[in-house]
Amino acid sequence: VVRDGPSSDMAAAPQGYRLRDLVSRFGGELIGDGEVVIRQVAPLDAAGPDSLSFLARADYQHQLLSTRAVAVLLPASHRDATAIARVVCGNPYAYFARVSQLLNPVPVVAPGTDPRAIVHPGAIVPASCQIGPFVVIEDGAVLGERVVVGAHGYIGERTAVGDDSRLNPGVTIYRDCRIGRRALVHSGAVIGADGFGFAQEGGNWIKIPQVGRAVIGDDVEIGANTTVDRGAMADTVIEDGVKLDNQIQVGHNVRIGAHSAIAGCVAIAGSAKIGKHVQIGGSALISGHITITDRVTISGSTVVSKSISRPGRYTGILPFYEHAAWLRAGVHLRQIDDLMRRLKRLEAELRTKVREDDKT
Amino acid sequence: VVRDGPSSDMAAAPQGYRLRDLVSRFGGELIGDGEVVIRQVAPLDAAGPDSLSFLARADYQHQLLSTRAVAVLLPASHRDATAIARVVCGNPYAYFARVSQLLNPVPVVAPGTDPRAIVHPGAIVPASCQIGPFVVIEDGAVLGERVVVGAHGYIGERTAVGDDSRLNPGVTIYRDCRIGRRALVHSGAVIGADGFGFAQEGGNWIKIPQVGRAVIGDDVEIGANTTVDRGAMADTVIEDGVKLDNQIQVGHNVRIGAHSAIAGCVAIAGSAKIGKHVQIGGSALISGHITITDRVTISGSTVVSKSISRPGRYTGILPFYEHAAWLRAGVHLRQIDDLMRRLKRLEAELRTKVREDDKT
Amino acid sequence: VVRDGPSSDMAAAPQGYRLRDLVSRFGGELIGDGEVVIRQVAPLDAAGPDSLSFLARADYQHQLLSTRAVAVLLPASHRDATAIARVVCGNPYAYFARVSQLLNPVPVVAPGTDPRAIVHPGAIVPASCQIGPFVVIEDGAVLGERVVVGAHGYIGERTAVGDDSRLNPGVTIYRDCRIGRRALVHSGAVIGADGFGFAQEGGNWIKIPQVGRAVIGDDVEIGANTTVDRGAMADTVIEDGVKLDNQIQVGHNVRIGAHSAIAGCVAIAGSAKIGKHVQIGGSALISGHITITDRVTISGSTVVSKSISRPGRYTGILPFYEHAAWLRAGVHLRQIDDLMRRLKRLEAELRTKVREDDKT
Repeated sequence: VVRDGPSSDMAAAPQGYRLRDLVSRFGGELIGDGEVVIRQVAPLDAAGPDSLSFLARADYQHQLLSTRAVAVLLPASHRDATAIARVVCGNPYAYFARVSQLLNPVPVVAPGTDPRAIVHPGAIVPASCQIGPFVVIEDGAVLGERVVVGAHGYIGERTAVGDDSRLNPGVTIYRDCRIGRRALVHSGAVIGADGFGFAQEGGNWIKIPQVGRAVIGDDVEIGANTTVDRGAMADTVIEDGVKLDNQIQVGHNVRIGAHSAIAGCVAIAGSAKIGKHVQIGGSALISGHITITDRVTISGSTVVSKSISRPGRYTGILPFYEHAAWLRAGVHLRQIDDLMRRLKRLEAELRTKVREDDKT
Repeated sequence: VVRDGPSSDMAAAPQGYRLRDLVSRFGGELIGDGEVVIRQVAPLDAAGPDSLSFLARADYQHQLLSTRAVAVLLPASHRDATAIARVVCGNPYAYFARVSQLLNPVPVVAPGTDPRAIVHPGAIVPASCQIGPFVVIEDGAVLGERVVVGAHGYIGERTAVGDDSRLNPGVTIYRDCRIGRRALVHSGAVIGADGFGFAQEGGNWIKIPQVGRAVIGDDVEIGANTTVDRGAMADTVIEDGVKLDNQIQVGHNVRIGAHSAIAGCVAIAGSAKIGKHVQIGGSALISGHITITDRVTISGSTVVSKSISRPGRYTGILPFYEHAAWLRAGVHLRQIDDLMRRLKRLEAELRTKVREDDKT
Repeated sequence: VVRDGPSSDMAAAPQGYRLRDLVSRFGGELIGDGEVVIRQVAPLDAAGPDSLSFLARADYQHQLLSTRAVAVLLPASHRDATAIARVVCGNPYAYFARVSQLLNPVPVVAPGTDPRAIVHPGAIVPASCQIGPFVVIEDGAVLGERVVVGAHGYIGERTAVGDDSRLNPGVTIYRDCRIGRRALVHSGAVIGADGFGFAQEGGNWIKIPQVGRAVIGDDVEIGANTTVDRGAMADTVIEDGVKLDNQIQVGHNVRIGAHSAIAGCVAIAGSAKIGKHVQIGGSALISGHITITDRVTISGSTVVSKSISRPGRYTGILPFYEHAAWLRAGVHLRQIDDLMRRLKRLEAELRTKVREDDKT
């Protein structure tokens, strides 16, 4: 059941899975017709008659009435909210993800090295790997089993990539880095480039050699054009299960704790330490040398300029205005110091006034 | 009249165009000597004696006095603001753009496939295309007429690129995407990488297969290192005439309406819907799942955290301070809730005071 | 003394340098045992018994007590703060950088052109250059002596790269650009792509040909996936000694003055002029057409929306809040205009009240 046609016509997989079989595989309570055949997954409002859909949040409940899905995944709270075939389960969205992985598997690894790839004799590339055209693998590099290196990939000297990792076309990994197992790295990602480290002397910048590594754990996804710098003297470390979106910049000596997820265009300055299960919204800036504890959520575009030691959600976004209103507001924002001073003076004056009046 | 020398010496094209001939071609009212020869275009203050210049805004009018340009483009309001040869026209800047395109044409397509490119036998690449060295075009890809794929380009399975599109060196397009006609895509752009979609289960992230496509209309320009993710279940869509600057991130299932223009480093989170003729300044963040109506302008660095249903310009930028002043202001910005509370109390106290005094 | 093993095991260079010899080479006052052998540099808290460390800031002084370093670099103020071998010098951090460069030299250039590179017969590539596999060097390009172009590099027509410059794998430089001597350009950088220039006409965008160049001075470092656009009509200029981190966007016609340093993800809009010795923190936005004078420091994430004519540090960062507090604060930030109005009214009312009371 490989499905790789264009999605817009929602082409059904040539054969599908009976709902009953999905329940055998993934669990949950089946209610209704277990013989219906599932060929694709889709949101409630986009599902076709061969699709399994899901209710992840109660506010989409009204879509249950109009969906064309042949079956749905529901939490126990909504088990009777529809008459169509359904599976009641603890986490419909995760269940849906697993069914989608079954229906839309990653391409099978096609072992072999393209004749137009260059693999240094001193590199270790198992026969189970798939090495694309124009790939360069340097001396001492070590690939695990079933690693896929897409066209134009570059793997530097002594860099290691773990079993079942997949580098899409055009990924560059500098020398002496470590990528764990089951990584998925998207095109244009650059791992292990020099961190930004200079000493100042008489107005000139003297480069500090960046001799640390980039060390990346298992089950990490790295988005397109994301950059992860090598460490200056110690390593830059990304722990297991971290998910990085596109165009993220990870500075030297940063550590990102396991299972954290970071959205696009976030910049993480050097030596920042980010805990486990942290979530960071798009375009946020994490300042250098700060620490964020586990289970913190940072809203998009927020500047984390000091450490956070308590789990929770943190936000620092200036609301937006119609431009004319902002022109006025901007003046006041600039003058907030003055505003506060005047408020204090008013408080004092009123207090004085009241006191004087009381005397009279 | 091909001009491709370095610009700093403003080398004249070997031959030029008489002003009279430009007016025949592009219209406008010619005043003065139509025989002057134009070899280049330039701003008023940088123009040489072979250059055509233009007055786009009245506040540059004083530069008309000192310009070395041999001719200028003027709006009707300024038809007599200079004695040099001139063309009066409705939109001098657009007129100037057209003349510049004539004087600085894109390189002619040189049909043929470099022997070091790899074109899968199952791909369709017309003889009129120019395919550079080390390009990879996968099975089922379909190129239109006169498509240019620069060195190191990658076009995935079943992806289609329309007539007269030009991919500069190092562009990567994943499988099953659609690029329209007359696209210009700059180096390092990645189109169709996976969107950022995961379900959470017991602290782990479960990947949701990204089975939608990236579908891009006609006459779209995509800047260097910009990323446009494929859709999760439906498609990511960029409509006709959209212009994207460098290093923009377009998340999955985003739609960008026709003729919108977006400046560098903007991040557009998943499922955002952006209208037609929208302009977005650099480094802005558009939150996920919001809608921006047509003809909205967003200032640079503004965070659009909720939908905008009325055309107009919107801004949310914190002004900057000298650092010492910001240290004080920052405290007050953090305490604005307290500031407001104290203001309310003062208002109440003063009101009470007045009322009491009135009684006495 | 080449050291290129992984850093985590802090493998010592096969042979090292006696402290005495380092002092002969780099100066400073030697105190203690000059025979100790230095094989690596490291921070005080990570140093091993073959390492030289340094005290750059007084607040790390306590680490002198516990460090395992065999020698340290100290300012005169701390000459007696430890008993271990030491070098007293004016700028310990810069001294440390120089020692690290000695211990961790860049790889020696291996002259020669890989047979799978394509060098146009009309390009000039001295025999001292190292040209990697799958590199493309176009007609008229001119390389200086000992230039390294890593795998998958692309150098466009008539572009020049100065002596001893090093382009890591996957760098793209468009036609007609200039890179100075001793440049270090990281993977994924794109130099000379079109600036973002369009004229508007009837709702459509008309492209303005970008005929300027990108001109980059000597001793410039350009980070991974950074983009430097070519000029529209004049050039984009980056002066000597500038250091650019990763994922920076430099728009057309920008000028960056000598020895300025810019951190990751900064966006510099078109025609901005940045002075010499300027430092810009990560994710800042520099608006178009503004001027920043010499020796200005901009904090991360600050939006520089107008020119700065006085040296100093400037900041515009909204502090972050716990999310619940921000929800309240955000309302007040939006209403700051109202807040100011109410404050003014209060001031007036109190003034009136006092005046009236004084009359009675």
